[in-house]
Amino acid sequence: MAENFDLVVRNGTIATASDIIHCDVGVRDGRIVAMAEDLGTGKRELDASGKLVLPGGVDSHCHIEQASSSGVMTADDFYTGTVSACFGGTTTVIPFAAQARGQSLREVVDAYHLCAGPKAVIDYAFHLIISDPTPEVMGQELPALIEDGITSFKVYMTYDALKLDDYQMMTVLEEARRLGALVMVHAENHDVIRWLADRLLEQGHRAPKYHAVAHARIAEGEATSRAIQLAKLIDAPLLIVHVSAQEATDAIRKAQTEGLKIYGETCPQYLFLTAQDLDRDGMDGAMFCCSPPPRDAQAQEAIWRGLKNGTFQVFSSDHAPYRFDETAKLKHGPNAHFKQIANGVPGLELRLPLLFSEGVKKGRITLNEFVALTAANAAKLYGLFPRKGTIAVGADADFAIWDPDREVTVTYDMLHDAVGYTPYEGRTITGWPELVVSRGRIVVEDGSLHAEMGSGVFLECEKPDSARPLQRLEPEIDPARNWGFRL
Amino acid sequence: MAENFDLVVRNGTIATASDIIHCDVGVRDGRIVAMAEDLGTGKRELDASGKLVLPGGVDSHCHIEQASSSGVMTADDFYTGTVSACFGGTTTVIPFAAQARGQSLREVVDAYHLCAGPKAVIDYAFHLIISDPTPEVMGQELPALIEDGITSFKVYMTYDALKLDDYQMMTVLEEARRLGALVMVHAENHDVIRWLADRLLEQGHRAPKYHAVAHARIAEGEATSRAIQLAKLIDAPLLIVHVSAQEATDAIRKAQTEGLKIYGETCPQYLFLTAQDLDRDGMDGAMFCCSPPPRDAQAQEAIWRGLKNGTFQVFSSDHAPYRFDETAKLKHGPNAHFKQIANGVPGLELRLPLLFSEGVKKGRITLNEFVALTAANAAKLYGLFPRKGTIAVGADADFAIWDPDREVTVTYDMLHDAVGYTPYEGRTITGWPELVVSRGRIVVEDGSLHAEMGSGVFLECEKPDSARPLQRLEPEIDPARNWGFRL
Amino acid sequence: MAENFDLVVRNGTIATASDIIHCDVGVRDGRIVAMAEDLGTGKRELDASGKLVLPGGVDSHCHIEQASSSGVMTADDFYTGTVSACFGGTTTVIPFAAQARGQSLREVVDAYHLCAGPKAVIDYAFHLIISDPTPEVMGQELPALIEDGITSFKVYMTYDALKLDDYQMMTVLEEARRLGALVMVHAENHDVIRWLADRLLEQGHRAPKYHAVAHARIAEGEATSRAIQLAKLIDAPLLIVHVSAQEATDAIRKAQTEGLKIYGETCPQYLFLTAQDLDRDGMDGAMFCCSPPPRDAQAQEAIWRGLKNGTFQVFSSDHAPYRFDETAKLKHGPNAHFKQIANGVPGLELRLPLLFSEGVKKGRITLNEFVALTAANAAKLYGLFPRKGTIAVGADADFAIWDPDREVTVTYDMLHDAVGYTPYEGRTITGWPELVVSRGRIVVEDGSLHAEMGSGVFLECEKPDSARPLQRLEPEIDPARNWGFRL
Amino acid sequence: MAENFDLVVRNGTIATASDIIHCDVGVRDGRIVAMAEDLGTGKRELDASGKLVLPGGVDSHCHIEQASSSGVMTADDFYTGTVSACFGGTTTVIPFAAQARGQSLREVVDAYHLCAGPKAVIDYAFHLIISDPTPEVMGQELPALIEDGITSFKVYMTYDALKLDDYQMMTVLEEARRLGALVMVHAENHDVIRWLADRLLEQGHRAPKYHAVAHARIAEGEATSRAIQLAKLIDAPLLIVHVSAQEATDAIRKAQTEGLKIYGETCPQYLFLTAQDLDRDGMDGAMFCCSPPPRDAQAQEAIWRGLKNGTFQVFSSDHAPYRFDETAKLKHGPNAHFKQIANGVPGLELRLPLLFSEGVKKGRITLNEFVALTAANAAKLYGLFPRKGTIAVGADADFAIWDPDREVTVTYDMLHDAVGYTPYEGRTITGWPELVVSRGRIVVEDGSLHAEMGSGVFLECEKPDSARPLQRLEPEIDPARNWGFRL
Repeated sequence: MAENFDLVVRNGTIATASDIIHCDVGVRDGRIVAMAEDLGTGKRELDASGKLVLPGGVDSHCHIEQASSSGVMTADDFYTGTVSACFGGTTTVIPFAAQARGQSLREVVDAYHLCAGPKAVIDYAFHLIISDPTPEVMGQELPALIEDGITSFKVYMTYDALKLDDYQMMTVLEEARRLGALVMVHAENHDVIRWLADRLLEQGHRAPKYHAVAHARIAEGEATSRAIQLAKLIDAPLLIVHVSAQEATDAIRKAQTEGLKIYGETCPQYLFLTAQDLDRDGMDGAMFCCSPPPRDAQAQEAIWRGLKNGTFQVFSSDHAPYRFDETAKLKHGPNAHFKQIANGVPGLELRLPLLFSEGVKKGRITLNEFVALTAANAAKLYGLFPRKGTIAVGADADFAIWDPDREVTVTYDMLHDAVGYTPYEGRTITGWPELVVSRGRIVVEDGSLHAEMGSGVFLECEKPDSARPLQRLEPEIDPARNWGFRL
Repeated sequence: MAENFDLVVRNGTIATASDIIHCDVGVRDGRIVAMAEDLGTGKRELDASGKLVLPGGVDSHCHIEQASSSGVMTADDFYTGTVSACFGGTTTVIPFAAQARGQSLREVVDAYHLCAGPKAVIDYAFHLIISDPTPEVMGQELPALIEDGITSFKVYMTYDALKLDDYQMMTVLEEARRLGALVMVHAENHDVIRWLADRLLEQGHRAPKYHAVAHARIAEGEATSRAIQLAKLIDAPLLIVHVSAQEATDAIRKAQTEGLKIYGETCPQYLFLTAQDLDRDGMDGAMFCCSPPPRDAQAQEAIWRGLKNGTFQVFSSDHAPYRFDETAKLKHGPNAHFKQIANGVPGLELRLPLLFSEGVKKGRITLNEFVALTAANAAKLYGLFPRKGTIAVGADADFAIWDPDREVTVTYDMLHDAVGYTPYEGRTITGWPELVVSRGRIVVEDGSLHAEMGSGVFLECEKPDSARPLQRLEPEIDPARNWGFRL
Repeated sequence: MAENFDLVVRNGTIATASDIIHCDVGVRDGRIVAMAEDLGTGKRELDASGKLVLPGGVDSHCHIEQASSSGVMTADDFYTGTVSACFGGTTTVIPFAAQARGQSLREVVDAYHLCAGPKAVIDYAFHLIISDPTPEVMGQELPALIEDGITSFKVYMTYDALKLDDYQMMTVLEEARRLGALVMVHAENHDVIRWLADRLLEQGHRAPKYHAVAHARIAEGEATSRAIQLAKLIDAPLLIVHVSAQEATDAIRKAQTEGLKIYGETCPQYLFLTAQDLDRDGMDGAMFCCSPPPRDAQAQEAIWRGLKNGTFQVFSSDHAPYRFDETAKLKHGPNAHFKQIANGVPGLELRLPLLFSEGVKKGRITLNEFVALTAANAAKLYGLFPRKGTIAVGADADFAIWDPDREVTVTYDMLHDAVGYTPYEGRTITGWPELVVSRGRIVVEDGSLHAEMGSGVFLECEKPDSARPLQRLEPEIDPARNWGFRL
Repeated sequence: MAENFDLVVRNGTIATASDIIHCDVGVRDGRIVAMAEDLGTGKRELDASGKLVLPGGVDSHCHIEQASSSGVMTADDFYTGTVSACFGGTTTVIPFAAQARGQSLREVVDAYHLCAGPKAVIDYAFHLIISDPTPEVMGQELPALIEDGITSFKVYMTYDALKLDDYQMMTVLEEARRLGALVMVHAENHDVIRWLADRLLEQGHRAPKYHAVAHARIAEGEATSRAIQLAKLIDAPLLIVHVSAQEATDAIRKAQTEGLKIYGETCPQYLFLTAQDLDRDGMDGAMFCCSPPPRDAQAQEAIWRGLKNGTFQVFSSDHAPYRFDETAKLKHGPNAHFKQIANGVPGLELRLPLLFSEGVKKGRITLNEFVALTAANAAKLYGLFPRKGTIAVGADADFAIWDPDREVTVTYDMLHDAVGYTPYEGRTITGWPELVVSRGRIVVEDGSLHAEMGSGVFLECEKPDSARPLQRLEPEIDPARNWGFRL
């Protein structure tokens, strides 16, 4: 074995989604080429004694340089977003190329490439957001984009500008199945939320906290069940994003128990915030408004249980970087009502440290489960594995060296996004990614960025294993067995 | 006690929803005024030795003299409909005053009274069908009609001309709760059915049997779950009509287990027909097309289980009398596709005999359960109890004398509706209502009708016990307990 | 109709398990012979205007003149027990003829007849307790006793002197099924309770409250599930007595959902007491020790839900009249530990008033449900219907006239049992049975007893509908379907 | 890095429980010391191009050189057993040091070491079987043995000679929790099986197939639920072995959904055999008798679903090598009844090939899941990870090189155990472990054994992660929350 490594990490404790390994890691040309007990020299050597070497996080749900459905722009562009990500130990992001109704998907993607390419400091893939599944979009644009490596797309069951009805959902699910792509769904019942919000506003209830009342747990649970039933009908895989409470968790678990290919994702805000955070003076609660909203301590326990027992495969940030000022959260002024608040909370940088501290250090999940939830599973579900999401020979050299015992008290000043606040201000965290490597490049060291703008590359995703191509949906009239479709 | 009865029934075995009583029944002025072991004489005396005396059926789900949402008129008007009903042992019907979009409810009801009053031979109440829940309809017309004794209304989650969206469903449920009325819902997912039907037709699958494929069990189960979640959110009672399969049954049972006021109804077609009946040459399968469609043997077992264990409270006919000719089922000709077939099957006259024969005689349900399912429960749920649905002092003298052992082979010729066919042709039934009494009048005897056209009366329903008036829906922000509405 | 009634009750509001009737009731020779709007005269006439006339309660679970398994005698004999019962509106009791191991069932029953006959003031039937299901007992004695009208028997899964193992349970269930009798089971896991108790005592935890710790909810839930599985295996009906908490309720509900013939019973102590009542100074908590123990507010809600949604068919007292003195509860002195306390609480007299007050008056259950739970269902399940449990022509004249609005504050002094205390001391109740009639005799009026000792009669029970005779259990080897038994 | 490897495997496709890696593997001193894209030379080099390199199987449930509870000796001793294992790609076995009642655990273990040490050709650890949990055994012997690296023990809920009652189960579970060991349980209801068997034999049903009737699915489901409830009560981890059907699978899944530390194991016989295999002429069905028995196609589907959705963590053989002759299966002659047949089927050698062929090759599970189920999870649960169960630097060099496409038709002649038959005779398998390495030694190559008798070593197990030490069980009397134990 040639011994001239570009980088050698020595003596670390390496974790993958299933293994704990004590050895050296040798990197060459951006990839891991050797793992051994005693590797030869590298141009750069790092001592990881007493440290953990963990796969770089894959944040498969984050909004970067994207306009919200109501036209508010995220504070983070691909530069600040990816810088923030890598400081938190994340080395891959998969934000959304979002179609507005009437738009060509191809144009949306082309424009998004122009945003990302010059700015990203770590690697990135794209999901699509499909809000207008016309025959042309589904039949022509989508297949071509999937061939180009954009193999997953998100749909919404709520928001006026994005919502698909159940007919469109069926169309999207069938196309995804046929093409071998994976559908992600924001599952909340639009009409229920609208109805509750209208009743609240009629009664003069305008404060941010009423956002948490309008977005009832039942609205999330109902839409989740419904989306699963639609997917079941045509045997399509489906991933439910940002699950916040028991009701939706139960629906996902039930589907998995039946053997359906249903996946679940949750986020830091559902473990570490509650609706009570929205109940602050004036508009301050707006800093915690996201959809679905944080719930209560009981819901947090349900989410932890789902992380532990395998109901959730993915722990993402759903980073939605809206500033708490007139550009975003407060666009409608200090007297705005809860419907006028831009929805979403930031979390790209703290996603891994929060879960490490509360999950691994407190014994709720193992280190392997941490890696699976923050990196490996997302890479697998979205067709980036084994290039991303693990530390293994052949994989990209994307990892972070963690001090598992370092205590950090969160202040916004230490973060690197452009949002201006963090919902986790003041929280103490144990465990921190001190040095971060992306494709063999040290991008964060000693608290400083060492990556050049635009040095991240676009990742073409494979068709995910979870999705299975389909030829044709045929009615099945076998009275002895079934009246339905043969898939 | 004055002994001059108008009618005395001697020596019968009387069943109510809970009791089996051997005694005489004395009737005066249309009501039961005495039950005793040895009553005095009556102007007319009937010997019921060896016979059962059962409460006249209350058919709380039947379509009479009503245009379908696609404009097809039912074959039965209030004369043929009520004549057919009483020959089958039913003495009360509750058909639907159906609002088309844009119509005034009041005008709909006034017009329906003009249809019913001159023709009905037995008593009747009205449900409303609400397809256009405008503020005026809900805020002004509806409260007035409820005061006039029309205290229940049906809504649809499918059919283009009738479908309410979930926002409208919430509005209707809240109003019903506020006013103390009961909502009935046809629960099938409209988009799912449309999508499946479109795919089937694209592939050239046009035969009647594809109706059973398009109306997938999941479409029913999903909509049932969704309707229940909406009702749960505002703690409103809700009755799911014509349940056909396991999925919806499970959803109802689960809600009842949680303690919700959710009620279930099923019909003969889900016990005695299957989807295989739709699979006949040419258009013959159209005779069995109804929504939801009959399923399979396993679904029949699920429905029987639900009848026995109390999941279903009501066994109605959903009588939808469309002729198998160019006036209705075949309106679009012999080459019509399955979407063009008028939906529904007749069953008003055979509802009780079918359930008696297969349920009581075969030991699946008790005689008390038979009475509860066919008469008492509907009377209670819809505010007609104890006037209708039982045999007790003070109740209207509505009952039938059954020969529990009489064997009848069904042919359409023996029936009295105007439909022209029966889906149960050729089936052998054990047990038959031989003499039928409505408000003290013998209306059927020796196979002949003895009632005059127009002799039935309109029944004002009380507000049902199941519904509870509400003052106001208030948001509840008690972080220790809940973020939701206080009811 | 002959008009010379022995007793006429005028103008009352009568409730049965399904009906509400306003009429007069005529009684002759101990039976109800007429119900009518205007009856002729009776030797005795009672005005029930503004009052309820309800079926006399059937208490199908009460311990009278019985030695406990540890040899403690109940304070109530058939005189004080039945006097107490009738003052509370109960007119039928079904206590237990309890077999000790080695005893002949026939001898047990003969002896019990000698206790009951001379003393009972109201009618009574017997259950058996079988603790020793030898071939002779099961094969010879039991069939003969069932022919003599003792058609139900209780078995125990706990208590050293009574416990059957699962093998014996299977034998008993199969015999019951074969003979058409009904099995009642006290379902708690013996070993779990023993193990927890041993650990508690080892640690020096001796106070009465530890009884509630040792009898863990899981011990009840586990044994209930197990008993149901045994019954399911041979398709035998089974009634789970005195259910106290969610776990067992869930198991029963699940079985009913599957269509099994599983019945549930609960008692006042699980609605109106909690484990906190056991946590009193000294031995005072012993007054509330029963098995299973009262639980907490959440369990009470589960029990109420089960009463409302039909999970429980029977509301009994499980009256276990042990005095709070050295004869019973304190037999082992003031320093006894919790295992040495005689188990059970009294409740025969207050069972109906408590449920009426908290259930009917507070809107949790209807008046019909009250009658079903306290009288009709037990009569039906145990083969006493329609003689007992209803107000209908032909039934025994067993009823009580209730003032639905009378407020009573419970003190032990007002009660008529021999126990010396009541666990409900100080509780205020609304609604009271003011006059009680047993087989046409006024037994309670104006707070005084009018019945002679020994005037109650023994009731032979029919084989209950719930049980179905069986010829033989055959193995079924149909690989396409099942490997099991054909029943 | 020193390049003088003892063994280098080149160009293989390596799978771990989470990764797929294409690289060389370098072995020195029995351990994997390097994985890299281009390793230096080794004394021995193997070309694995186009082949899979999979972790050696860990068979954590197999009976070797053990007398059954009825005194029948297994045909396999540690030589034939471990030879058979390694030919099938398994490199670690964990058989049972089985205590008979009255025996000292220490003596049992000492004797078992004497059996294993001189004969085993691959590495081995021991589970204990505890049939007599006396205070001395639990309090003194067990802690010492756990310190010696025997950290798991199996208990039985059936078999006369082994059965623990629930009290003993509680004791064992509590001790395991306190000491940090893991309990495995054979969960079948002893009394139910006895009762059914007695009834069958009374009726003259003696053939082997009646074994499958007596061991009813409900007996397994019930005991599984019960064991889980006991474990739940004291919050102890528990592994249910050899699950065969839906009922037990459901119970395990439910527990996992609740967040309990309940683990599940299944075996080849429940995927690839059915009860129909027992239904052969004469005694031939005895070859397929094991407990629980194989079930039917529906149960097989339930087991596959449980493997896929994570309900089962472990896929073991439950190898029980009883010859089909007078030494074992037919000890009681050709007219024996089903209770007299030694229970168990062989499977040590075919476990991995069967699951690879039907699971991986047919797309039911992924290659990672295969590794997890056959090797990694068992190693983790029983404290052998990361030494065994993975291919990673630092791990023992235990792996097999598989030809994923080789087709093999099973005949007993090709196998290496001493049993004399295989239940899988004639089945065609795709994929085969062609070369097997144990601690760096090539033990199987070209169909020949290259390992010396006695070359396997005893493995001391760590305390498994799944188990958590406990100090003391304290009663918790907090009426607001609970009446139970604080753990």
